[in-house]
Amino acid sequence: MEEEREKTAAISLITDFGLKDGNVGVMKGVILSMAPEAKIVDVTHLIEPQNIVEAGLILLRSAPYFPKGTIHVVVVDPGVGTNRRPMAARLGDQFYVGPDNGIITMLLERIERSHQPVQMIQLDNPRYWLPDISNVFHGRDIFAPVAAHLANGVSLTSIGTPIYEIERLKLPRPEPTSYGLRGEVIHIDHFGNISSNIMREHLGDRPDVRVRLRDKEIKGMVRTFGDRPIGELIVLYGSTGNLIVSVVNGNAARVLGVRPGDKVEVHY
Amino acid sequence: MEEEREKTAAISLITDFGLKDGNVGVMKGVILSMAPEAKIVDVTHLIEPQNIVEAGLILLRSAPYFPKGTIHVVVVDPGVGTNRRPMAARLGDQFYVGPDNGIITMLLERIERSHQPVQMIQLDNPRYWLPDISNVFHGRDIFAPVAAHLANGVSLTSIGTPIYEIERLKLPRPEPTSYGLRGEVIHIDHFGNISSNIMREHLGDRPDVRVRLRDKEIKGMVRTFGDRPIGELIVLYGSTGNLIVSVVNGNAARVLGVRPGDKVEVHY
Amino acid sequence: MEEEREKTAAISLITDFGLKDGNVGVMKGVILSMAPEAKIVDVTHLIEPQNIVEAGLILLRSAPYFPKGTIHVVVVDPGVGTNRRPMAARLGDQFYVGPDNGIITMLLERIERSHQPVQMIQLDNPRYWLPDISNVFHGRDIFAPVAAHLANGVSLTSIGTPIYEIERLKLPRPEPTSYGLRGEVIHIDHFGNISSNIMREHLGDRPDVRVRLRDKEIKGMVRTFGDRPIGELIVLYGSTGNLIVSVVNGNAARVLGVRPGDKVEVHY
Repeated sequence: MEEEREKTAAISLITDFGLKDGNVGVMKGVILSMAPEAKIVDVTHLIEPQNIVEAGLILLRSAPYFPKGTIHVVVVDPGVGTNRRPMAARLGDQFYVGPDNGIITMLLERIERSHQPVQMIQLDNPRYWLPDISNVFHGRDIFAPVAAHLANGVSLTSIGTPIYEIERLKLPRPEPTSYGLRGEVIHIDHFGNISSNIMREHLGDRPDVRVRLRDKEIKGMVRTFGDRPIGELIVLYGSTGNLIVSVVNGNAARVLGVRPGDKVEVHY
Repeated sequence: MEEEREKTAAISLITDFGLKDGNVGVMKGVILSMAPEAKIVDVTHLIEPQNIVEAGLILLRSAPYFPKGTIHVVVVDPGVGTNRRPMAARLGDQFYVGPDNGIITMLLERIERSHQPVQMIQLDNPRYWLPDISNVFHGRDIFAPVAAHLANGVSLTSIGTPIYEIERLKLPRPEPTSYGLRGEVIHIDHFGNISSNIMREHLGDRPDVRVRLRDKEIKGMVRTFGDRPIGELIVLYGSTGNLIVSVVNGNAARVLGVRPGDKVEVHY
Repeated sequence: MEEEREKTAAISLITDFGLKDGNVGVMKGVILSMAPEAKIVDVTHLIEPQNIVEAGLILLRSAPYFPKGTIHVVVVDPGVGTNRRPMAARLGDQFYVGPDNGIITMLLERIERSHQPVQMIQLDNPRYWLPDISNVFHGRDIFAPVAAHLANGVSLTSIGTPIYEIERLKLPRPEPTSYGLRGEVIHIDHFGNISSNIMREHLGDRPDVRVRLRDKEIKGMVRTFGDRPIGELIVLYGSTGNLIVSVVNGNAARVLGVRPGDKVEVHY
């Protein structure tokens, strides 16, 4: 049974391809050849090479802001051409197309917690791929054409076989301690803001926390960057509710020499 | 009164968000959720963090080449979440959406000099925003949805309250001197070309000028890059009429060690 | 005679403009002002400044994946404003717009070998340009508007005068030697993969080759990256059939200190 879908679906792209070689453009060429009305949106192509967790985080953060029916194509794919499976999924009212390598773990868990519909398939119907399949660029040969066919209204069950177990990543969660919570740095953004896996839902709006990171202790949280003078080290909630450490109009990660995986302690 | 507008308006984006974190993609997701037919164009997301003047310059240079009705969304916003106002404006036959922090000074002055219509509002009607407003990402929560509503034909006066005074930047202008003119470096481009605030309208087509920058003196102006051999230091007018210093097929800023704010002397 | 064409043609962009100055956005503004329904796709704007060969390679690799009728606008143009000619061409079922400086050599030779139609013109009808033409930014003033007019269905012969000889680059080809083949490095991609001008059609699927590059020898070819452990140096065919040298999940160019132009020997 074919589903009713708009033929102007948004297709979002997340890759680690970088911007200089034209590979993202090639994927867009493939999509437009098959689905000329698709609205293609770059989310990022600067995922650290092979960093599946980072890709999953960006997907988790961006998906809620995209329209119903959006097809998220994520190609961070160190296992391309091996026996890792290509897959697609319905996750609530949106779709995922990409490798079965754990990228969707966090988004899938959120969809499952809210009891939205989930449907997953292995991509195994070459009728919906390019005629020639390389061993090294499934973004072009499999994922872009599958996304285009989904955008054209082809059903998930036409393009593959249902699967029920997929790769899931084990992700670090903040742990309660005698003094409060211990989490870790999960992302450094373009401005050098340091994002942790400690969320507003873990802490609430306690004004009196002390945050320790490297050998620094920062007292109290602020609402926004401009609440303190330029150059000051601050703690606040970022735009998706993560506890972040920042320097007003500066680069906190550079100032503190922090990297993903470093511990963040919240004392209260 | 609702205005008549095309529902396929162009929306241009200028930010300092960089390209790796997906925040620009999130803004596009928000826009497409509300205005699926909008034509979104990236102008740049590599404004130096918090550099309002650079954002204003890029806006000034790019706006004239965009269609009538274009909505320019500019998010370089160090005061996000403080008492700086979110605003929108009609500037001639185009629109601005972004913070009231001086970004539009140069464009507004040009529009005023040519006596085109100007209308400015404070964004204070949350009906046109996302339901939840963070303190740190008004690009997503306020400016993207407002731009989408404008693209859909909603009038300026529906989405906010008229204002008449906004923040204006004091910008350096070239000064007449005993020997000619003294200006300054306002932009270094991707190629390393050094752009000054001295314009063709200040100087005209004098073939015999001498330009001093750092400890170099360059004699005469050329028409274009290929007029001299590779590696030679030249002076010419750039594509928007600014006097620029360049190295043929090379990087003048790196060769001369020049930065924005350095003085440029024109002797004639 | 006007040709029948879709008014929703794809326009692909390849430039060396970088991403920070807004010049690509300006070209898109010009295109959308004239052809509001054009589908504009960025292929890359990070061609090494003035590197015509690299631009030609990216064009060669990406063009086959774009729809029939696509207009490829390529602006790597060190001779802008000199007597180098602006040109446009029909190359098979697609179009090129850009300088006559050798960018299309490789793509043109492929089209000629397969006996597809070729038609070339010099752009000399200012009616299809912007009213004011700078000496330094023909991407904005000539190529973008010409692409928009082509997208709107204007014929090649309306916008210029037929030409039959254009600039052609002499490109290095792999040479047979006593031990096998000697080629050279033609591209380093975002991941640090080293691409040579030796193609699958030159070598076929010989499992027993030895590849020498710098002072390293690598024995045998693999099918894909995941066939070997992380960190291992491998040889394989890339997604367009070039022999590439790679480090599994690593950066081969950095590890080996390789640059474009370095020799690659294949022994068999």
